[in-house]
Amino acid sequence: MSMTNAYEPGRAELSAEENALIARRERLLGPAYRLFYERPVHIVRGDGVWLYDADGQRYLDVYNNVPSVGHCHPRVVDALCRQARILNTHTRYLHENVLNYAEKLLATFPEELVHVMFTCTGSEANDLAYRIARRRTGGTGFIVTELAYHGGTHVIAELSPSLGEHVQLGDHVRTVPAPDAYRNPGRDIGSLFANNVRRAIDDLRVHGIKPAALLVDTIFSSDGVFGDPAGLLAEAVEVIRAAGGVFIADEVQPGFGRTGAHMWGFQRHGVVPDMVSMGKPMGDGHPMAGLVVRPELVSEFGKSRYFNTFGGNPVSSAVGLAVLEVIENEGLMANARAVGGHLGDGMQRLAAKHSAIGDVRGSGLFIGVELVRDRATKQPATAETAQVVNALREKRVLISSAGPHANILKIRPPLPFSKDNADFFLSIMDEVLGALDIQQHTV
Amino acid sequence: MSMTNAYEPGRAELSAEENALIARRERLLGPAYRLFYERPVHIVRGDGVWLYDADGQRYLDVYNNVPSVGHCHPRVVDALCRQARILNTHTRYLHENVLNYAEKLLATFPEELVHVMFTCTGSEANDLAYRIARRRTGGTGFIVTELAYHGGTHVIAELSPSLGEHVQLGDHVRTVPAPDAYRNPGRDIGSLFANNVRRAIDDLRVHGIKPAALLVDTIFSSDGVFGDPAGLLAEAVEVIRAAGGVFIADEVQPGFGRTGAHMWGFQRHGVVPDMVSMGKPMGDGHPMAGLVVRPELVSEFGKSRYFNTFGGNPVSSAVGLAVLEVIENEGLMANARAVGGHLGDGMQRLAAKHSAIGDVRGSGLFIGVELVRDRATKQPATAETAQVVNALREKRVLISSAGPHANILKIRPPLPFSKDNADFFLSIMDEVLGALDIQQHTV
Repeated sequence: MSMTNAYEPGRAELSAEENALIARRERLLGPAYRLFYERPVHIVRGDGVWLYDADGQRYLDVYNNVPSVGHCHPRVVDALCRQARILNTHTRYLHENVLNYAEKLLATFPEELVHVMFTCTGSEANDLAYRIARRRTGGTGFIVTELAYHGGTHVIAELSPSLGEHVQLGDHVRTVPAPDAYRNPGRDIGSLFANNVRRAIDDLRVHGIKPAALLVDTIFSSDGVFGDPAGLLAEAVEVIRAAGGVFIADEVQPGFGRTGAHMWGFQRHGVVPDMVSMGKPMGDGHPMAGLVVRPELVSEFGKSRYFNTFGGNPVSSAVGLAVLEVIENEGLMANARAVGGHLGDGMQRLAAKHSAIGDVRGSGLFIGVELVRDRATKQPATAETAQVVNALREKRVLISSAGPHANILKIRPPLPFSKDNADFFLSIMDEVLGALDIQQHTV
Repeated sequence: MSMTNAYEPGRAELSAEENALIARRERLLGPAYRLFYERPVHIVRGDGVWLYDADGQRYLDVYNNVPSVGHCHPRVVDALCRQARILNTHTRYLHENVLNYAEKLLATFPEELVHVMFTCTGSEANDLAYRIARRRTGGTGFIVTELAYHGGTHVIAELSPSLGEHVQLGDHVRTVPAPDAYRNPGRDIGSLFANNVRRAIDDLRVHGIKPAALLVDTIFSSDGVFGDPAGLLAEAVEVIRAAGGVFIADEVQPGFGRTGAHMWGFQRHGVVPDMVSMGKPMGDGHPMAGLVVRPELVSEFGKSRYFNTFGGNPVSSAVGLAVLEVIENEGLMANARAVGGHLGDGMQRLAAKHSAIGDVRGSGLFIGVELVRDRATKQPATAETAQVVNALREKRVLISSAGPHANILKIRPPLPFSKDNADFFLSIMDEVLGALDIQQHTV
């Protein structure tokens, strides 16, 4: 995700209390931590799609995908507390929870994907996929998109160009442009993407590196939210397999019904991955993640043991099961589709009014709105996007931005987001974009 | 940890229900998961130092260090549930919990160690230490002990020889023998260890590899529990620093008061590490971990951002704070010292009776008991150790084993372990060792 909207000292007037909290953070947590917004938000309570600050002010959450079924969902919290009072141990004793959860989770996958291994974070899930891909293929080459983010472990940071100049990509890593239909009008996006993967494979081979995997976020979140046309991944998946590599779908962001039409982002493209990593929304905030695999992928890897102390424990499993039940019982996938469609339509209407909107895209409740200075040249409106994100924050609406120029609004609310919430958000967007138009015209 | 006691099909008669659970595990979780014991335990409830199986039978937990302040400690569960109902979000908004927790945690460290970064697992904490050590030193060489376990991410598995033949150590990794006073009687253990580190550094250099770090578990848990003599790490720490590397103390197992005399294992050796990783006991089962660092270590690294979605969230911070308060309020460190001493004395008395006990060692409630076939030759009693661990399980006492020959009983109960618990455990140990003696004499 872009950090253009990160807090920097001196850019905004803060209260004494806010300054004190920030000073404590720097003293205690050190220099690697970042805060959102010019004027950071001090959140003390969450409920559904709402967050509340220390002054009791309410913020509409249009950004956080971790509390995917809503902040502090009572059914999820009840499952957490019930199990935490009874038992929390590990997977080297027998326990039903991990099995009941694994069964329900795997039932949402195509039949080829039969095993799940549990970790605590998406980074760990991708790291495990990395280990398995190398073991399975004997290769070491990885292909990712130009602005991918897949996690923070050493080898996964090396596969995460969005971390920027201070983190070096590995020598064994090649990047390809994300499949951007907006900036490649009239092109066959799937072929374009597959051709770039082909070129990356060729370049790995020229350097004597055997390809291990193509790893992509199936909605290309940090690249700028690209999901269209449906099916675009199919050719690239064939290409990596023909080269002896495997296809890893990173569902940490699109997964768990967010894209509306499907439980998993890869389903939109009619492909069946070799491995699927998942994380953030899996426990509605509880630290849990996992990797779903085809059995042949782990037949060799399984000879070494894999143990994750907290992964798949009875509490995490109870929480994960409750999240799946809430998605089902509250029809959150259908809601993501309906409200996402409504929100997308509303954004298109705003586009007719505000020339800064160059493109509206996405699927379900994962929408990217690309801001440009000129619709003909598509010049990225980087500064204006930061202005919009910060202006929305001042109006107590939380979103962020993505993409190489940080000019793509990343709209990704908790799934119980209602049409009313969408309309409220659209009305505030209208105001904020209006102020931007005026500024653009007067400058 | 040794997996000699892992379940293997056909070694023990199991109930239809147990077999069904095991079949489901294999089908759903795949081949990389392992179960403890010839006859796996099906645990359904935990309370303090006790675990209960599906038939309502009670097991004394003499092994699990994750539920360090006791299984399902009500104060910890209350803190978890209270905060989970209010807010669970991330560190890019301001929140007091992470600061209050960081402050209390850092207060237990020497003044040189001033920042803490939060992760979800010990593997992630060590992986972060790896990244920081490389960035800080410009080196890539790592030195670990011969049977170390530091975690499961790709780069940390490469530093974990205890994972066995199926996981390759990195080319940039050198191993040194753990500081084993039992098998090196009369030697200066600290110098011996430091000399081995010196040799490892020399060998790295011969191969053109600049040393980055010496990484050790400060009680050498999976190597077989070595803590004596106090101070033994001091010379090795000087050696790695003189070579331009840093010293990373892995406190995932010894940390949080377990060794009785100190909150952290490294304090026993009078050294101040450059980084300290921690995990398992930190949240009494809740998935949380962290890395404490000297500020100069992250001055460069901090230019890149580090973000861990769940790490340091308000719920984890509330849980971590409650664990620290329980350790303090219930005097658990003093209890570890007193009961650990009592248990060690009892083991020494058993040693006078049972020749299989070659050595009793450790600190606080982390005790290693090495079983040998012959006290003169110190031949490891590998099979007998597995027999003891499985016999204890049949008598509903849970422990495990460690060391290169899996002949060291690993005794590591939750910290509220009482003298009565210790006496009960000792009486069962007496029986089990007695049966072993008889078998040894009749075979």
